[in-house]
Amino acid sequence: MDFKTLDPSFEQRVRDSFARQAAMALIGASMTRVAPGRCEIELPVREDLTQQHKFVHGGVVGMIADSAGGYAAFTLMPADASVLTVEYKINMLAPAKGERLVARGEVVKPGRTLSIVRADVYAIEGARETLVAATQQTLMVMHGKSDERL
Amino acid sequence: MDFKTLDPSFEQRVRDSFARQAAMALIGASMTRVAPGRCEIELPVREDLTQQHKFVHGGVVGMIADSAGGYAAFTLMPADASVLTVEYKINMLAPAKGERLVARGEVVKPGRTLSIVRADVYAIEGARETLVAATQQTLMVMHGKSDERL
Amino acid sequence: MDFKTLDPSFEQRVRDSFARQAAMALIGASMTRVAPGRCEIELPVREDLTQQHKFVHGGVVGMIADSAGGYAAFTLMPADASVLTVEYKINMLAPAKGERLVARGEVVKPGRTLSIVRADVYAIEGARETLVAATQQTLMVMHGKSDERL
Amino acid sequence: MDFKTLDPSFEQRVRDSFARQAAMALIGASMTRVAPGRCEIELPVREDLTQQHKFVHGGVVGMIADSAGGYAAFTLMPADASVLTVEYKINMLAPAKGERLVARGEVVKPGRTLSIVRADVYAIEGARETLVAATQQTLMVMHGKSDERL
Repeated sequence: MDFKTLDPSFEQRVRDSFARQAAMALIGASMTRVAPGRCEIELPVREDLTQQHKFVHGGVVGMIADSAGGYAAFTLMPADASVLTVEYKINMLAPAKGERLVARGEVVKPGRTLSIVRADVYAIEGARETLVAATQQTLMVMHGKSDERL
Repeated sequence: MDFKTLDPSFEQRVRDSFARQAAMALIGASMTRVAPGRCEIELPVREDLTQQHKFVHGGVVGMIADSAGGYAAFTLMPADASVLTVEYKINMLAPAKGERLVARGEVVKPGRTLSIVRADVYAIEGARETLVAATQQTLMVMHGKSDERL
Repeated sequence: MDFKTLDPSFEQRVRDSFARQAAMALIGASMTRVAPGRCEIELPVREDLTQQHKFVHGGVVGMIADSAGGYAAFTLMPADASVLTVEYKINMLAPAKGERLVARGEVVKPGRTLSIVRADVYAIEGARETLVAATQQTLMVMHGKSDERL
Repeated sequence: MDFKTLDPSFEQRVRDSFARQAAMALIGASMTRVAPGRCEIELPVREDLTQQHKFVHGGVVGMIADSAGGYAAFTLMPADASVLTVEYKINMLAPAKGERLVARGEVVKPGRTLSIVRADVYAIEGARETLVAATQQTLMVMHGKSDERL
């Protein structure tokens, strides 16, 4: 699908917002790609992100999926709006292990009030990518509430 | 609802497993209550857990909900089993801010293979509790795979 | 939880709307109870509602859960608004069989724009109630669009 | 994605099972396409399938999505197994109106015990297709329980 942005500076706006998410710094996530309706977030696997079986904690997988999805939607929102996660659903498909995880969000349907996004998370080990989680998410556009000043 | 455990040592088993979750230590979460079919996890609010609007990141809210729900189900599982999150759905209801968050998981239906749980997350500020997230979760019992040795 | 309605005629408004749902007549569902923030829908089990194993089709279970949840939210909306299902998630917990099914919706959090509801579906056989499905749902308030004239 | 079936007679098995779903006959749905990991179900729009605004009831949309998803998963299961919906999540994206609806299910990840599927529902009016719903679903394989005799 091909999406049109309303805001030519969408990439800077999205990257600035991501940079303000302290929780992404805590886990070591970075935003590797932003395009209209799409966003990719990468997370190097670290020992302190794991659950009891030494895989990355499902909640951490959810964190990067939520962010990749939310920012995919945010690319299509007007410059004076901010984005809010209404809800998401995540299926865990395989143990989250390897060198790093990559969450790829893609808008399914942008809307004036609500946007629907799917984000998939892959575990990467060398040249091999394994799908580890699949999400479907609902985001809300907060018009007139700049992300920066909320 | 009143649940019966199959394992009289369920509390120790659950607390030991939680203690092995490095990701819970990273965010500063602790397990405050365990009972048959129920589990409570508490998270002091910290600056490094926030998103761009300085509320606790939705993914972090999801982390403690996922853990509270998963361990609520785990209390009812046999001693030689481990627990796996199949999927969860989370609705964000209010900004996650205050002194601390508390996630309370409660089993809706325990099962031999799958268990269904609901976990709600509250933000606490002084004497005031605000519901900030509601989840519904599916867990899988991994028979014969002790949580410790998986 | 105790909810306050904005519209003293909420019950009539909800029942009138339900009466306009042809699909509920097709499957034989009726609205058995309406209260602020709550709604109950009943469905006698019929052969023509079943799936391949002769239990009531999961989608039919979803229909009455969706309606019970949506109307529970609708009780708390202003008189000039209509209600729209944004999304729902449903867990199937047991085979839907017996004399009749009852879906009970209860608002978790009412909101100006979005409302969150949980609805559970029970199968009834004589004096016995079995929980067969659990849902969590997001509804949208459409202000200024009367349900009758949309 | 390219899927391999375990059962060369998968199409007959799937079509026979669908033919046993009385609820699909009640609403007038038919199975228009079956392929490994994929299934399509079509529903002519009828007055008696609508909700209060004269669009097809969300629960009916859920019915065909659930069936398309479940049978997409069922194509990849062994001949002696049956399929059970564990849960699904559905987002309503646009009013379900037009000449007919088409639900297209596609497996995201097949598994020995659990399979994950996405199904999208389109409304068709002449040459125009509008995405009206998006689902993500978890199915369970019931080994050794033939769909026919369960």
